[in-house]
Amino acid sequence: MLEKVVVVYSGGMDSYTVLNLAIAQGYEVAAISFDYGQRHKKELTVASNASAGLGIVHKVIDLTAVNEILSGSALTSGIDVPEGHYESESMKLTVVPNRNMILLSLAIGYAVSLDSRKVFYGAHAGDHAIYPDCRPEFVNKMNQVSAIANYDEVEIVTPFINLDKSDILRQGLGMGLNYAKTWTCYKGKDLACGRCGACVERLEAFTKNGVEDPLEYE
Amino acid sequence: MLEKVVVVYSGGMDSYTVLNLAIAQGYEVAAISFDYGQRHKKELTVASNASAGLGIVHKVIDLTAVNEILSGSALTSGIDVPEGHYESESMKLTVVPNRNMILLSLAIGYAVSLDSRKVFYGAHAGDHAIYPDCRPEFVNKMNQVSAIANYDEVEIVTPFINLDKSDILRQGLGMGLNYAKTWTCYKGKDLACGRCGACVERLEAFTKNGVEDPLEYE
Repeated sequence: MLEKVVVVYSGGMDSYTVLNLAIAQGYEVAAISFDYGQRHKKELTVASNASAGLGIVHKVIDLTAVNEILSGSALTSGIDVPEGHYESESMKLTVVPNRNMILLSLAIGYAVSLDSRKVFYGAHAGDHAIYPDCRPEFVNKMNQVSAIANYDEVEIVTPFINLDKSDILRQGLGMGLNYAKTWTCYKGKDLACGRCGACVERLEAFTKNGVEDPLEYE
Repeated sequence: MLEKVVVVYSGGMDSYTVLNLAIAQGYEVAAISFDYGQRHKKELTVASNASAGLGIVHKVIDLTAVNEILSGSALTSGIDVPEGHYESESMKLTVVPNRNMILLSLAIGYAVSLDSRKVFYGAHAGDHAIYPDCRPEFVNKMNQVSAIANYDEVEIVTPFINLDKSDILRQGLGMGLNYAKTWTCYKGKDLACGRCGACVERLEAFTKNGVEDPLEYE
């Protein structure tokens, strides 16, 4: 019997690569996505479709009620999504209070329920500047909690924590992944905008790999 | 202006005492409760009524969707609630996977949104045997995460972590609190059962204090 793992899967290219890596490593994967009221809900549909294609279990958990207490992010409110480079100061507007601690806590709870001992999480170096909850020290401390919070220890596994988005893309392309099955844009329209921080970073990764992004842009 | 704090408030006697302690210490309190599908939902109504009486902000967050991924607890499923003493092996049936890590993560997110730096949490020594996520080492490790997960540090404050339920009750009675405004029973009927672990522990605390519990029992 395969060892079960939970994968935190947003529908974006990093977590799509993590998901496929876990499958390639021989794990039985249960993917989990969260609807936390993000305007780019399209990532959830993309995640469901890709999961169906891979034949894996995929849950989308409705956390929209939580929005009432997590205020102030451009991703979940009327504030305009900032354009420009991902590492710029303006991207701080896209921070959702304590988001990854909340999502990882739920993923760890899911792992405990499944009698699984690992949660795969696609945090990477490109996010470290803006998002404190994507940094290695955050993952280390979370693992220390996760080791004692339940009767069984659950480990958060972050294969990409020291890579940037173009490294991840290189690895995924090497695995033959099709990135048309991912969604990155923060704006939540039919086509990707190509201008928000997330799109800029994605396009940069494709350029660095000398490959054209299969997604259609506005 | 008073300093704002978030209080994790279940409606039970421990968190009711913590809530009143925070108010007595001069904080502006925002109380937060969670509907995670517990069968003893009466605690949420009791919490709302008590909050209204105290004139404080109180949010009840609907987490019932999360139940889909957190299986196996007698508190949230068809499994019978065990009777008998709180510290017995059978009480393990009442453990909800990773519950307090999830609830504290949300409370910390709420604190960040309110620009508050403290979350009050009524963990106490009586829970240490059965619930790993009520132990001092859990709170310590959570505080290490909470110090770095957001731009601002949030501290989990646990005034009762080394006290038992009868100590907490003694303190609350000394503050003149009315425990008719709390709910403890796990079974979720109109009257408290007096036989589940939670009731047994509560009644024991009243007996140790030589005081009659103002709640009506079956």
